[in-house]
Amino acid sequence: MVSSDGAGAPTKFVIVGGVAAGMSAAARARRLDERAEITVLERGEYVSFANCGLPYYVGGEIAERDQLVLHTPLTLKAALNIDVRLGHEVTGLDSASRTVTVKNAEGSHELAYDALILTPGATALRPSIPGLDSPRVRTLRTVDDAVAHRAAVTGGAAKAVILGAGFIGVEAAEALRLQGLDVSLVELAPHVLPPLEREMAAPVAAELCGMGIGLHEGVVAEAIEPGTTHDTVVLSDGTRLDADLVVLSVGVRPDTAVFEGAGVECERGAMIVDEHGRTNLPGVYAAGDAVVQQDRASGLRRPVPLAGPANRAGRLIADHILRPAHARPIPAPVGTAIVRVGSLTVAMTGGNAVSLDRAGISYRTLHLHPAHHASYFPGAAQMSLVLHVRAEDGLLLGAQGVGTAGVDKRIDVLATALRAGFTVDELIDLDLAYSPVYGSAKDPVNLAGMIGQNVGEGTLRLRYAQDWEALRNEVLILDVRSPEEFAAGHFPGAVNIPHTELRDRLDEVRSAAGGRAVRALCGSGVRSHIAHRVLSQAGFDSASLSGGMLTARAVLSSELFEAAR
Amino acid sequence: MVSSDGAGAPTKFVIVGGVAAGMSAAARARRLDERAEITVLERGEYVSFANCGLPYYVGGEIAERDQLVLHTPLTLKAALNIDVRLGHEVTGLDSASRTVTVKNAEGSHELAYDALILTPGATALRPSIPGLDSPRVRTLRTVDDAVAHRAAVTGGAAKAVILGAGFIGVEAAEALRLQGLDVSLVELAPHVLPPLEREMAAPVAAELCGMGIGLHEGVVAEAIEPGTTHDTVVLSDGTRLDADLVVLSVGVRPDTAVFEGAGVECERGAMIVDEHGRTNLPGVYAAGDAVVQQDRASGLRRPVPLAGPANRAGRLIADHILRPAHARPIPAPVGTAIVRVGSLTVAMTGGNAVSLDRAGISYRTLHLHPAHHASYFPGAAQMSLVLHVRAEDGLLLGAQGVGTAGVDKRIDVLATALRAGFTVDELIDLDLAYSPVYGSAKDPVNLAGMIGQNVGEGTLRLRYAQDWEALRNEVLILDVRSPEEFAAGHFPGAVNIPHTELRDRLDEVRSAAGGRAVRALCGSGVRSHIAHRVLSQAGFDSASLSGGMLTARAVLSSELFEAAR
Repeated sequence: MVSSDGAGAPTKFVIVGGVAAGMSAAARARRLDERAEITVLERGEYVSFANCGLPYYVGGEIAERDQLVLHTPLTLKAALNIDVRLGHEVTGLDSASRTVTVKNAEGSHELAYDALILTPGATALRPSIPGLDSPRVRTLRTVDDAVAHRAAVTGGAAKAVILGAGFIGVEAAEALRLQGLDVSLVELAPHVLPPLEREMAAPVAAELCGMGIGLHEGVVAEAIEPGTTHDTVVLSDGTRLDADLVVLSVGVRPDTAVFEGAGVECERGAMIVDEHGRTNLPGVYAAGDAVVQQDRASGLRRPVPLAGPANRAGRLIADHILRPAHARPIPAPVGTAIVRVGSLTVAMTGGNAVSLDRAGISYRTLHLHPAHHASYFPGAAQMSLVLHVRAEDGLLLGAQGVGTAGVDKRIDVLATALRAGFTVDELIDLDLAYSPVYGSAKDPVNLAGMIGQNVGEGTLRLRYAQDWEALRNEVLILDVRSPEEFAAGHFPGAVNIPHTELRDRLDEVRSAAGGRAVRALCGSGVRSHIAHRVLSQAGFDSASLSGGMLTARAVLSSELFEAAR
Repeated sequence: MVSSDGAGAPTKFVIVGGVAAGMSAAARARRLDERAEITVLERGEYVSFANCGLPYYVGGEIAERDQLVLHTPLTLKAALNIDVRLGHEVTGLDSASRTVTVKNAEGSHELAYDALILTPGATALRPSIPGLDSPRVRTLRTVDDAVAHRAAVTGGAAKAVILGAGFIGVEAAEALRLQGLDVSLVELAPHVLPPLEREMAAPVAAELCGMGIGLHEGVVAEAIEPGTTHDTVVLSDGTRLDADLVVLSVGVRPDTAVFEGAGVECERGAMIVDEHGRTNLPGVYAAGDAVVQQDRASGLRRPVPLAGPANRAGRLIADHILRPAHARPIPAPVGTAIVRVGSLTVAMTGGNAVSLDRAGISYRTLHLHPAHHASYFPGAAQMSLVLHVRAEDGLLLGAQGVGTAGVDKRIDVLATALRAGFTVDELIDLDLAYSPVYGSAKDPVNLAGMIGQNVGEGTLRLRYAQDWEALRNEVLILDVRSPEEFAAGHFPGAVNIPHTELRDRLDEVRSAAGGRAVRALCGSGVRSHIAHRVLSQAGFDSASLSGGMLTARAVLSSELFEAAR
């Protein structure tokens, strides 16, 4: 492959796109090779800007626009001798002659390369809604977008509608609410943050509502009616929402038309690359939001629009160009993501139920609600965790967490375990840092491992709240919480015997069950596990409700429990 | 092996010691086997108490004594049908007849077992110092200890001396200082928290001093002179410290005399067990602080006094007794620990320089000082990380971190990577949760991986501040920071050329070096890496100072730099 370390002509790098993957490739190339000629072509007016910081500038937590601009062509020239050209758009690629056509303010020209790295990113999806071209509608993907939204806020905007409640949509909603606007959040999917499991999205929705954000789930905008003082967003359920500004965040698609047209092989618009980031064209590499990646947990192929994997791929591509014999392959992304929502941290790694179902993988799901540090130390906060493990062998496939503290840590540990290919049993073996200020002697991740091991070995059988309707008449629901907890809300028809009394009251259970199976439940699944052990060893067909009432309340309508009070 | 699931007589468990390992074994045994007879013999007056919470009760953060007592014999009887006997000390063991001799308030009796689990823990080391038996001297290992110390505080104690600055000693010092006492902390080792590397202990010492705690490092107490109003602690350097209370925390030793006397094989007083926790005696298991474990990173054999591994071993022993065919082996502990010191979090996992040197393992050390989340998001705090990786292949061997935020998360991720057997390169591949609120697109752990990979592949050569004395005349110290940073303190004789100007000023470097090697340094090691790449490709014998000035200031006397200003 091309190399300029030592003798011969210096390698000419041309890099299309100057944010995560592109700049990582450029910086790595320079560190490996002082002689390389490195040109970065960025069509926008900023290089290496803080993509993920944009909503926080809108919300005012990041005070100054300049804080979003991490580097400039001048600083990159000085530190790394990289030639960054802003306002330069690549409009053509001739892989036979190894040249790209570049358009800038002065016209078009050709630029030759030895190695071409394509990191064009993605563009916002623009659904075909009448009125979407209103000047009050704008995405939140560039520094200019963020500046425009903040200008609207300081200019007196009072009502905002966010179309799409993915990560950026939720961050934008919180930002605008922080600025005092009346905010409505519209999501086509049945719940906000669609990659979340339903039971994890419920507390997020509650938090958003608690912040005063109006949620419109399971609906779409059908029209944006322009007005003189404001626009009106019309939803598919007939709701009409006034809007001084509209944030469009319904998704993205790879921005690859030029390159697909030039012969780069694509799959649903995303460029196909091998384990070293090579496209089908010689000397042409690609990385970032515009390439297909195979998800490690599910095996599904899709673009992964995350900064970490983009940076890594850019770095590894530079390695492969300059020292192919030493270049490590680009790993399949695990897909870890996190977002702050009010006081909550919401994080996920690996596959979710939708992706695992789509991939045809058979899995078990575990729920737990541990304290983020020792419960005897002040300030302990309960979090909710869900894990998916492969049915056949307990391989960890995915995890999600929601809570006010310690969630990011547990998801990062689980993301590391996923990368390591751990089974759920192996989570028990992790030595995580314990003092009562930081965790528990049995960390939430260890506890998840114990639950998974119990399920895998058959000493714990789990049933799920979503199967409630099918089960309600066929089983005895045995609530093993205290009478006080029971009185505060329970499943209709449930019988209450505290777990501490169960051994002495098995006859009552037998009589109430009348030959039916028994399904034990408690607050979070800990006491019902003990009850299940007592029941199953006493000969009952028994199981425990995964995640207990906490998960049930998130999955089922809370009216179910209020009615039974 | 013994089993009572199903037919036959129920298994009689006798468990000696009712805290971490013992209670985990008891609870697991019950969940696996309703018929088992489970007796826990605890010589103290509390079972399953919050060992690690004791200093926080002394300091008042944990308000009530009852918060330290997680379970009682009554609650354990009700929930798990476990027979916990407090005030019961085991004074004899006859493995031939499978009986132990038990002493309680009423006398002695024999108790038969099918399976005996020994979790006696450790006792405090009591050095032979005159006056150590003063009533003002007390350990901090039991609920009664904590109650006594707090009573002394509320009773007007004004001056405290802590003997031993390990984890408990440091926690005790902070607790007593929080209560307003004048606190002196005495440590035999050259620095507080002896398992820490010197460069990590320096900020901890500074934090303790900042809290107003008097540090006496590298000295011991030689006498405690009793007085009427207070005692006086006399140190080996002649210092005399008045003390209304003295906390003794100079270490522990396994409490195994009875069992070693009865034939349990021991190594320097710690019981030897196999991978299922079996001692050499049939039916006799052991776990917790009183057994030898082989450290995963260094291979050294020693007791590991940590709650997590103790709980895990207890659980796995119950598995092995009741279902030996399914029992997983007890994993070698990684040895992860954490402590809060004022505003700092101090955490470590795996081997440190001392243990790796002792084990004869050849390793490289990496230093970095990354921000705990995106530097453009408000509140970013710099942490210090040190990693040790095996020289031959980059296998991760150990890590330590100090900082005000995000340290616990990174050490837990590294502990997981250690358990997985990752090389340092593989840390690059971790997909850790990134939003500017929680981390960076290149997480500190990823950055550590990149530094390690660069070192392993030879594109980065590191040198260390501790070698300064040997190097100072033989090399050119090239400081590539800004003139302003240079002016605020630098190595004597260093030449200042900012990294952004280096490519244009290589002739100056050549002239200043005069044929000597060049050692580049900057604030934390990032810019000096770039400089090293420029220099080495320009033909210089070059290297970069690991961790930059931040590490150098922690390792060397800061007077060195002040003098050169």
